[in-house]
Amino acid sequence: MASEILFTQQTKQTLQPFLGKYSTVCVLVDENTKKNCLPLLSGLFKEEHIIEIKSGEEEKTLTTCEKIWSRMTELSLDRKALLVNLGGGVIGDMGGFCASTYKRGIDFIQIPTTLLSQVDASVGGKLGIDFTLNGNTFKNHIGVFNVPVAVIIDSTFLQTLDPKELRSGYAEIIKHCLIADKNKWNEIKTNTDLSKFDWMALAKHSVAIKEKITIEDPLEKGLRKILNFGHTVGHAIESHFLFIPGKRLLHGEAIAAGMICESWLAVQKGFITISEHKEIENYILSVYGKTTISAAEIGVIVPLTIQDKKNESGAIQFSLLEKVGTANFNITLTKEEITASIQYYASL
Amino acid sequence: MASEILFTQQTKQTLQPFLGKYSTVCVLVDENTKKNCLPLLSGLFKEEHIIEIKSGEEEKTLTTCEKIWSRMTELSLDRKALLVNLGGGVIGDMGGFCASTYKRGIDFIQIPTTLLSQVDASVGGKLGIDFTLNGNTFKNHIGVFNVPVAVIIDSTFLQTLDPKELRSGYAEIIKHCLIADKNKWNEIKTNTDLSKFDWMALAKHSVAIKEKITIEDPLEKGLRKILNFGHTVGHAIESHFLFIPGKRLLHGEAIAAGMICESWLAVQKGFITISEHKEIENYILSVYGKTTISAAEIGVIVPLTIQDKKNESGAIQFSLLEKVGTANFNITLTKEEITASIQYYASL
Repeated sequence: MASEILFTQQTKQTLQPFLGKYSTVCVLVDENTKKNCLPLLSGLFKEEHIIEIKSGEEEKTLTTCEKIWSRMTELSLDRKALLVNLGGGVIGDMGGFCASTYKRGIDFIQIPTTLLSQVDASVGGKLGIDFTLNGNTFKNHIGVFNVPVAVIIDSTFLQTLDPKELRSGYAEIIKHCLIADKNKWNEIKTNTDLSKFDWMALAKHSVAIKEKITIEDPLEKGLRKILNFGHTVGHAIESHFLFIPGKRLLHGEAIAAGMICESWLAVQKGFITISEHKEIENYILSVYGKTTISAAEIGVIVPLTIQDKKNESGAIQFSLLEKVGTANFNITLTKEEITASIQYYASL
Repeated sequence: MASEILFTQQTKQTLQPFLGKYSTVCVLVDENTKKNCLPLLSGLFKEEHIIEIKSGEEEKTLTTCEKIWSRMTELSLDRKALLVNLGGGVIGDMGGFCASTYKRGIDFIQIPTTLLSQVDASVGGKLGIDFTLNGNTFKNHIGVFNVPVAVIIDSTFLQTLDPKELRSGYAEIIKHCLIADKNKWNEIKTNTDLSKFDWMALAKHSVAIKEKITIEDPLEKGLRKILNFGHTVGHAIESHFLFIPGKRLLHGEAIAAGMICESWLAVQKGFITISEHKEIENYILSVYGKTTISAAEIGVIVPLTIQDKKNESGAIQFSLLEKVGTANFNITLTKEEITASIQYYASL
């Protein structure tokens, strides 16, 4: 379950050598990556082989997959075709899923164009789409584990990114440091001016951590669960605000709040000290500020944590910091404990 | 890519030991297997965990998958849940696909209840559904390769099967003999009264051949293609008659015709002798009779062969008998040759 991961500032030259052996090469884009990123790859794709979908998490559906599969079918793509996914997490997750299921699987290459997808979604083989039932959307509910032929990571694409998007991706970098590299955490926590960071270097660091973990446990039977630190509460917060006008959070913003809640839980469990937690909390708040959550909203958010895919037999399982720089998993917490952690956050 | 394959006449006792370790066990049935097969497993499944879909190839769609995924979601199945697929090829292929993609994959067990699915579909990890675009249905177009925890093969289920369904499944047994076991071919070809066969013994023989081939080449990169003998022309014939009232063929009936056409092509290529071909032809005709195909229909059937998934770069590739008892693959044939083979069949 390992792909070639290539760091470059010349994606076109890096991608080109891969293309020769395929019968047809298609590229999946949305309106943003078509405008901002595809021009950097000019000449590599025929016009008819550009498959365009609308941007946004709300497009990460079976309906969009049908459009992609239909276009692949119209183009008579055979099993020796290649799909290049040029975009953020939605393009990568959904394009990878469509490629992995078209004629039972064709090759694909991921070119993540957001910091979030570069440091997280593009590595580790999780592919899929959201699924909506009775008005509830279940994130990444339908999908497969499968790895691309290559992942090409190019900081050039970050130049067109909104600073809020950069900050969102940075949350996963913070997470990787907290769960796996105390020294790096001590380094980044001194800087709150994100424009000063060398993103390529940070991406390499994060990808190395994520790759090591996912190669050891590709199917998330155990160790890989530590990557969910901050995500059990974070996903629930993200889901809750998804459809509330003006309160929608970017993924990393929600995870930032989730990491504060879950670090607090690690204190309650005796894993980390109060001062370690305060240091994490203060740094995250200085970068992301605080999301306002009302008491009524907490009552809605807590039940959402049970939908998490790593839960088993109805118990809510967490990955918490064991110490700063290491994490554990399969820590069962009660609804009361989860509620208390979000109440703590809301009271800050 | 290997599953446990268990031959039994007591499915309930064979299945039971597998069930204990799962958080929830669901069973997928259609109205026929619910009525005829599920009673043999009484007590193993709670009523609410029986997922029922309508029978028939026309139900093997994304729409039915959505119904299955919805039911799994309503039941809050977690990743430690199990899906038992009780039915023919449609149930096995589609249920296996739904299990393999629900939360990126839960375990499943195949209990094929038709001879066709026992000797073919349940072994080798091909899962998926049909896909319709602009009125054209592409068989098994969306899917994955994945293997079940176990395949349980029980000849008891064949007792409720229509003799035509038995005969359809037998075509794959003939195929397995022709491509891999000359002695067995010499044995079966002396018998045209199918009621005399020991189906359990024949199923074991076929499964052993298919398993050996698919373990060696699970993703159909090479050798596995020999299992397509009879299927390139056969699938096209099957597809053509699918929506013609009164002329619809069972899968094996179409493959029987396909094997005659493709054996004839093997003669033209110098692989087998005319007398070997005649022996195959006479036996297949004695079991299946002849399907009437008009000149106009041949013109429609030939283009359908190009949709075959094993084609590459627009060339139509065949797996032909190299000799009786062995087969080759990646034999490129022209449209004219394919046309001639179906004309030959039609003239019989």
